[in-house]
Amino acid sequence: MSDFAFSCPIPISDYPQVLLAHGSGGKLMHQLLDRLIAPTFANPLNADAHDGATLTFNGVRLAFTTDSFVVKPLFFPGGDIGTLAVNGTVNDLAMCGARPRYLSLSFILEEGLPMETLWRVIQSVRAAAEIADVQIVTGDTKVVDRGKGDGMFINTAGIGVIEHDLIIAPRMVREGDAIIINGDIGRHGMAIMAVREGLTFESAIESDCAPLVAPVMRLIESGVEVHCLRDMTRGGMASSLVEIAKGCGLHLHIDESRIPIRDDVRAACEILGLDPLYVANEGRFVAFVPQAQAERALAAIGEGAVQVGTVRADAKGKVTAQSSIGVSRIVDMLSGEQLPRIC
Amino acid sequence: MSDFAFSCPIPISDYPQVLLAHGSGGKLMHQLLDRLIAPTFANPLNADAHDGATLTFNGVRLAFTTDSFVVKPLFFPGGDIGTLAVNGTVNDLAMCGARPRYLSLSFILEEGLPMETLWRVIQSVRAAAEIADVQIVTGDTKVVDRGKGDGMFINTAGIGVIEHDLIIAPRMVREGDAIIINGDIGRHGMAIMAVREGLTFESAIESDCAPLVAPVMRLIESGVEVHCLRDMTRGGMASSLVEIAKGCGLHLHIDESRIPIRDDVRAACEILGLDPLYVANEGRFVAFVPQAQAERALAAIGEGAVQVGTVRADAKGKVTAQSSIGVSRIVDMLSGEQLPRIC
Repeated sequence: MSDFAFSCPIPISDYPQVLLAHGSGGKLMHQLLDRLIAPTFANPLNADAHDGATLTFNGVRLAFTTDSFVVKPLFFPGGDIGTLAVNGTVNDLAMCGARPRYLSLSFILEEGLPMETLWRVIQSVRAAAEIADVQIVTGDTKVVDRGKGDGMFINTAGIGVIEHDLIIAPRMVREGDAIIINGDIGRHGMAIMAVREGLTFESAIESDCAPLVAPVMRLIESGVEVHCLRDMTRGGMASSLVEIAKGCGLHLHIDESRIPIRDDVRAACEILGLDPLYVANEGRFVAFVPQAQAERALAAIGEGAVQVGTVRADAKGKVTAQSSIGVSRIVDMLSGEQLPRIC
Repeated sequence: MSDFAFSCPIPISDYPQVLLAHGSGGKLMHQLLDRLIAPTFANPLNADAHDGATLTFNGVRLAFTTDSFVVKPLFFPGGDIGTLAVNGTVNDLAMCGARPRYLSLSFILEEGLPMETLWRVIQSVRAAAEIADVQIVTGDTKVVDRGKGDGMFINTAGIGVIEHDLIIAPRMVREGDAIIINGDIGRHGMAIMAVREGLTFESAIESDCAPLVAPVMRLIESGVEVHCLRDMTRGGMASSLVEIAKGCGLHLHIDESRIPIRDDVRAACEILGLDPLYVANEGRFVAFVPQAQAERALAAIGEGAVQVGTVRADAKGKVTAQSSIGVSRIVDMLSGEQLPRIC
């Protein structure tokens, strides 16, 4: 409480209070991170604006990352907060090129939560950890009074081992790199929104929530010189690409007609007025690799992988998308809140 | 949601819902951990019921731990949720005998939180991390809707390096060990409760919230054969001792007249009908060392350290306390909730 020398760097006249959009993955969240958090904790280990930090102990390179999960509702088609809490952190480790090994698991429970609900989520955590081949080794449980939480929040932190010499980071992206994604986009966000908005389709849209360890490990083991990896979670594919474009200072150009989107996801997006490029995924990532190795990368990632664009040097830190009728538009992060509490 | 084969092991007739007491550090919390969580995630790395897990990579031993913080109010005499979030995790690492090195930092913010409040807490985190000599290397920020949180919750996870060959765990405690604490007890819990209950004393009771790295490192570097360390947080000194008695299967006997308690803390406890043995501390720990090395241990820990008891073999897994008038009583964990949300 005592010795902070500077006043808050987000002017009170702009945003005197935290808004939902500060957690959205868009512009406001980045403003909060860039102004309040990054300069306060600046150090060489988190300079890369990555999904996790890389730490070296006696020559062993470890990745370390954390995420809190506040998804609403707790259960949704294709998963629940427990599967999300495991896969979210496992995938952040995979995006560092690390093999996920150990997770911590911390619950914040609201008084009154049915014990049976907690038990179901614990079983989901166990099952997801088994599938991703990680061990839950430490944890914590807190309870807050009724009306001061929302059923359950979960935090996981994770440690993974980096078993290769690649440096995987936005600054490693090069002109000419192929931009590859591992499958159709928009399913996680629309699975959540369909439940919340009561949209019904012939069959429910299922979240794509899944561990990305296997395709990433296959990619690295195939010998492809991977430049950057990023999971396309909050803020969707668009926000991930904009972050990387800022990080490498190059022009990422994508061809929208090449991006797989399921019909039911596209229909749900249209009903809700959402752009699928901004809808969160929980089992999709983008990889940047040399164009000459793109075929090998696609084969290693496996079914669903597709090249959606190329890195150019003709504009700095910009993302553009070409539509199916050939028109190019600039892709930026959203300012406001598109999809609150999807993870 | 799919394949859990067993029903919830806490009978619904007992506790159909989560209660505040399930987060208290007492019997209900241990029931929840012992029945729901420990058997689900049982593995050799968390068999020790420790404050953290010990992981080995290429011969390097690391400690890994996590805690979420939901303290209310966010600011209190002697600290705030930010100092607590750093010191809580730093101290869990120290209790594993590790030198804390890296922390993750994850916020769950409630929509409407004043931006200035977030900024003050971030500055507290920075200052506490500097004092404890740890780096914040990765993080996350989520926002929940108004009325679904309580201003701010924080999770930290931490990694520390174990630089010695000791095994520090409840099972290492031996008959004849000296039981040593590093100072007066009950200040953190009473600092919080005095604010909440509007108690006023001549001067405010300040939390003892502090990093325990320096005294623990001095203790280990002094060459004392440390058998067990435990910080006396939720559930206070009593709960820490009961946990260790269960872990080693011996009889821990303490002399209450030797336990330092400040007059204002004792007075506040009397007003609120609380037993200081059960009141949380955030800068106090108990150490178990061979009696022959007790003097050296006291000198290494430094000012405030005092031997308060001895380990006996005449009863299994029990804690007893002898009062100033010579009467012995059995010390057990509390069933109900004594002090909700003190960390």
